[in-house]
Amino acid sequence: MSGTEFERIARYFAPLADEAALGLSDDAALWTPPYGKTLVLTVDQMVEGVHFLPDDPPGCVARKLLRRNLSDLAAMGGEPDGYLLTTALRVDTPEAWLAEFAEGLARDQKRYRIELFGGDSTSTPGPLMASVTMIGCVAPGAAWRRSGARAGDAVFVTGTIGDAALGLEAARGKLDDSSGHFRERRLLPEPRIGLPLAGLVHAAIDVSDGLVQDLGHICRNSGVGAVIEAGLVPASAAARAAGESWLEARLTGGDDYELILATPPDAEAALRKACGLVPVTKIGHFSGDSDEVVVLDRAGRRMAFTRTGWRHF
Amino acid sequence: MSGTEFERIARYFAPLADEAALGLSDDAALWTPPYGKTLVLTVDQMVEGVHFLPDDPPGCVARKLLRRNLSDLAAMGGEPDGYLLTTALRVDTPEAWLAEFAEGLARDQKRYRIELFGGDSTSTPGPLMASVTMIGCVAPGAAWRRSGARAGDAVFVTGTIGDAALGLEAARGKLDDSSGHFRERRLLPEPRIGLPLAGLVHAAIDVSDGLVQDLGHICRNSGVGAVIEAGLVPASAAARAAGESWLEARLTGGDDYELILATPPDAEAALRKACGLVPVTKIGHFSGDSDEVVVLDRAGRRMAFTRTGWRHF
Repeated sequence: MSGTEFERIARYFAPLADEAALGLSDDAALWTPPYGKTLVLTVDQMVEGVHFLPDDPPGCVARKLLRRNLSDLAAMGGEPDGYLLTTALRVDTPEAWLAEFAEGLARDQKRYRIELFGGDSTSTPGPLMASVTMIGCVAPGAAWRRSGARAGDAVFVTGTIGDAALGLEAARGKLDDSSGHFRERRLLPEPRIGLPLAGLVHAAIDVSDGLVQDLGHICRNSGVGAVIEAGLVPASAAARAAGESWLEARLTGGDDYELILATPPDAEAALRKACGLVPVTKIGHFSGDSDEVVVLDRAGRRMAFTRTGWRHF
Repeated sequence: MSGTEFERIARYFAPLADEAALGLSDDAALWTPPYGKTLVLTVDQMVEGVHFLPDDPPGCVARKLLRRNLSDLAAMGGEPDGYLLTTALRVDTPEAWLAEFAEGLARDQKRYRIELFGGDSTSTPGPLMASVTMIGCVAPGAAWRRSGARAGDAVFVTGTIGDAALGLEAARGKLDDSSGHFRERRLLPEPRIGLPLAGLVHAAIDVSDGLVQDLGHICRNSGVGAVIEAGLVPASAAARAAGESWLEARLTGGDDYELILATPPDAEAALRKACGLVPVTKIGHFSGDSDEVVVLDRAGRRMAFTRTGWRHF
């Protein structure tokens, strides 16, 4: 590492570090996981111009990076403990960018009760990049898998679907967003971590690439199909106001970080109750008749999509 | 993720994946660590043009990425279990590059008995990048820290020092390397993982930024100084043949991934024995007289350096 990198780590990252990180001054972090737990491990990266826009607020970039990873843990039923961070900054990345980025990390560390275990910082001649490896725990055998859905299970989703995709369209100037709702949802998703759904879910995935594509992952891994009704897919008030012409964008756009849950019929009431204040909506069911995702419009006709999932900027 | 990324993951990375990785088809990996162990966690990234040269063999880039992380574990006395990988490939990165990269990972997974737990793949308009988060174990309380050195401890180093730095000079055309020895050491360091040194070491660090700088990290963290003799610092036959004019480059150049060990006087003989076929050399001692690293030349005079550590390409 260069002297600048040591100084940056001391100034911005060391204050975020947990006891396990040993002040970020050792070769590696030391962490003793809780007794008798299985670890849940995931990593995600964000590239400027690919996963975020150059003028996105740095604090939001940091928080979204954490939240994307938290969402992956949520989709397995895991609880987060801590993370490792990499940053690759351009030589001309302003100090203020890093300061705001670190402040965003600090905010969400507190919010989600997670700690910085360690990291690596470097310079790059290319676009700014950062990655997070998130580590959490789950009771042995309790993790939800994409392969667990069974024919007859209901398809539930949390929250509302498609706001982040409309946020991307708004950033491209294709959609009015005077309230800032879509931008907010694109910049700062709400990972559905910590829902007490043990025993109520056969399979889960988070909506990162788009509802249709991610539901397809459950189907493919579980060897079932799914039939959902577009009219049941929950939309925010802003998305409803934007109109039906954005329906396909909502159903196939990524970055929502809501959960798709496969729930057995006898657990539906308990699921709704367990979700508490987090909205959860039944949008269809899994079926043994095919291995496809079928989306029906309000007239009961099968919808065709020009694309099923997210593409980079 | 895009369709190309799914295909690449299925083709190149899924065959490398452990049971914990769930075929790389879930949101996160699940891994139950061995009972009663403390985890050792580290992450390192490599950027094309910064940490490796565009025409370095992709298999070597992959193996060096793993080995740099393995070396961090070795410097804490840890044993590796598995890793998470990120790759950010350019649109014009040839398929063959990725194939060779994956083959390099496979070779070193076998060599070091580690597994791929999970990962993330994206595209970038910038230089190719990859990172590895390595996860391993150590007995509780047994990890070596940079802060453990005491006045009177001997300074030992494994292997030979400075070959990787001379490899960088050779790549720049400043040094003859007809045997290819320096290039080999730059491309493929040998992490000193698995040495049975429990109880024989007070502190350790791996030489990633340069002998003088990294020894300085132990000193600063331990609140001691160190006096080493340049003439005792082990050099390869090729480095000796290159001549004394390369001495400063050898002592301050990075990327060796040898270990610096602080060893109590009564453990020196046991340390030599425990290292077995891995060469280990005493080059000086830690001292309570100052907090500096003092390097003495063959005439016993203190050497001054124009730089103490590694700079990027």
